[in-house]
Amino acid sequence: MAKTDFIELLRAKFVSHLETRSKFTEPQNLYEPISYILNLGGKRLRPVLTLLTTELFQGDSDQSMDAALAIEMFHNFSLVHDDIMDDAPLRRGKTTVHEKWDLNTGILSGDAMLILAYQLFENYPPELFKKLTSLFSKTSLQVCEGQQYDIDFETRDDVSLEEYLKMIEYKTAVLVAAAMQMGAMIAGASEQDTIAVYEFGRNLGIAFQLQDDYLDAFGDPKTFGKQIGGDIMENKKTYLYLKSMETGNQEQIESLLHLYSIKPKDSSSKIEAVKTIFEESGAVEATKDAIEMFTQAAFGHLEKLKLSDANKKILRQFGEGLMQRTV
Amino acid sequence: MAKTDFIELLRAKFVSHLETRSKFTEPQNLYEPISYILNLGGKRLRPVLTLLTTELFQGDSDQSMDAALAIEMFHNFSLVHDDIMDDAPLRRGKTTVHEKWDLNTGILSGDAMLILAYQLFENYPPELFKKLTSLFSKTSLQVCEGQQYDIDFETRDDVSLEEYLKMIEYKTAVLVAAAMQMGAMIAGASEQDTIAVYEFGRNLGIAFQLQDDYLDAFGDPKTFGKQIGGDIMENKKTYLYLKSMETGNQEQIESLLHLYSIKPKDSSSKIEAVKTIFEESGAVEATKDAIEMFTQAAFGHLEKLKLSDANKKILRQFGEGLMQRTV
Repeated sequence: MAKTDFIELLRAKFVSHLETRSKFTEPQNLYEPISYILNLGGKRLRPVLTLLTTELFQGDSDQSMDAALAIEMFHNFSLVHDDIMDDAPLRRGKTTVHEKWDLNTGILSGDAMLILAYQLFENYPPELFKKLTSLFSKTSLQVCEGQQYDIDFETRDDVSLEEYLKMIEYKTAVLVAAAMQMGAMIAGASEQDTIAVYEFGRNLGIAFQLQDDYLDAFGDPKTFGKQIGGDIMENKKTYLYLKSMETGNQEQIESLLHLYSIKPKDSSSKIEAVKTIFEESGAVEATKDAIEMFTQAAFGHLEKLKLSDANKKILRQFGEGLMQRTV
Repeated sequence: MAKTDFIELLRAKFVSHLETRSKFTEPQNLYEPISYILNLGGKRLRPVLTLLTTELFQGDSDQSMDAALAIEMFHNFSLVHDDIMDDAPLRRGKTTVHEKWDLNTGILSGDAMLILAYQLFENYPPELFKKLTSLFSKTSLQVCEGQQYDIDFETRDDVSLEEYLKMIEYKTAVLVAAAMQMGAMIAGASEQDTIAVYEFGRNLGIAFQLQDDYLDAFGDPKTFGKQIGGDIMENKKTYLYLKSMETGNQEQIESLLHLYSIKPKDSSSKIEAVKTIFEESGAVEATKDAIEMFTQAAFGHLEKLKLSDANKKILRQFGEGLMQRTV
């Protein structure tokens, strides 16, 4: 079976498991929003990575279904609460939970999802349960911390690149990393391998988020899926912005500070001006370099894994597939 | 040592443990609100019950400190999120988290507290960790469900007494019950005993909440602590109200429906009229009977416990002390 077919098969198996396990009863007003958000779709990237990692380490992906669902449940919990915090009306093209119902429903259904995620580990025996739950708690708390840093950065003008990288690591990368580590743990991989696969996921997650920053400004409107220039319109301090502020000349820095202090109704000329500074300051090249560096770091950890070359290749192609969007 | 002195000692030990364990670092904007709400005080009823139960079953309360703190952490998480949902400005006489900071801080710091509560079990060995964590998840989810029922009941006019009792059981009683069961589990009590002590806590918790309903209307303003008649002003469907609607005559029911459809600026005459109906419909007597029934049910479970008579007496006196407010 071709690798992509295999990944599609895992995705289909996961979606079927999700449908079975997301039938809740009373109180309806608590559980209906949970079924709603879980069934909005999405790529199911994280749970598929859990299942795939279990299979690559010679485990049975049926055994990692509940852990995969816990990861997906947590991810959707964080989307529901983040959408409240960002006051977002849409998620995956559909009305967000707090818009479709109300604020209180968004808060309470989100809380219940976090608890439901923990409950999904209860089918594992005590030793493994404790390992998975502890990794899950550590990761979940980092996601909250990442979200807090993201909020804090909005009103700070002294954010360093190092701090920014930590923020995206916590907010995005560690959940991808933990999803893979759990898959390896359930397959009974060695501790060394579970750590290396975590590092693979963490570095790939950072590369992926940096690429998202890049594509938000320079992506192809036809394939990117989001409005190009959205981050610039919102004056979001991305890697491109922070790097420009670090490496730009006096004039570029002053222009950028001005452009990031305004929110014009028609933002097209602002977006073009900012993009020109991003390019001329060298920030675009630096961002591409950083993406490449984290991607290569991920592949470095991949090499360390005690996996067959064929299995390493599957993970490598999966990573390359994710990063292919750059082209 | 007298029993009350012993309980005071446990409370002091707990508060000292809480202070040690609630020193957090970065990001400050996430953790400061957590320290704030944890240190607002309160009776520490639930964690003290965990520690006391461990001691009564010949365990060492030092061993149950982290479980007790998890219970207190969860309780405070639910206060932070409930205060947002109720738009409450004050908690224990101090500004609520979402008022002192903002909505997003209330949501995110609350989320982090729920995760921190889970992390507190990580010091227990795997088998016990799994037992405690599973009980904690089951209980936390019931608390969310209870909160949802409470919200749903506001806009429903067909709430039954049975549904109301389930709501207060979930929203209030099960956490008291779980706090005690965890204490027994950590002491290594038999499964039979951990279940009986859970039932003691559950029944006592329901009795306590029914008494709260009663005192909110008929308590002594000097000792109750909250404004008398608050539930009536808010048209809250308490046990007194629902029982009046069940046992009242046609005239009483119609009067009550009218009184519960208005919110006059000066509510003193409304409060008096409602209280008269509560009394004349027999709801007051029925509520007192229910309080007595649940209290006696609690003491019935107490008798089943494999504890010395002296230790049973301590729990009985603790229960009586809680319920003494009726007088």
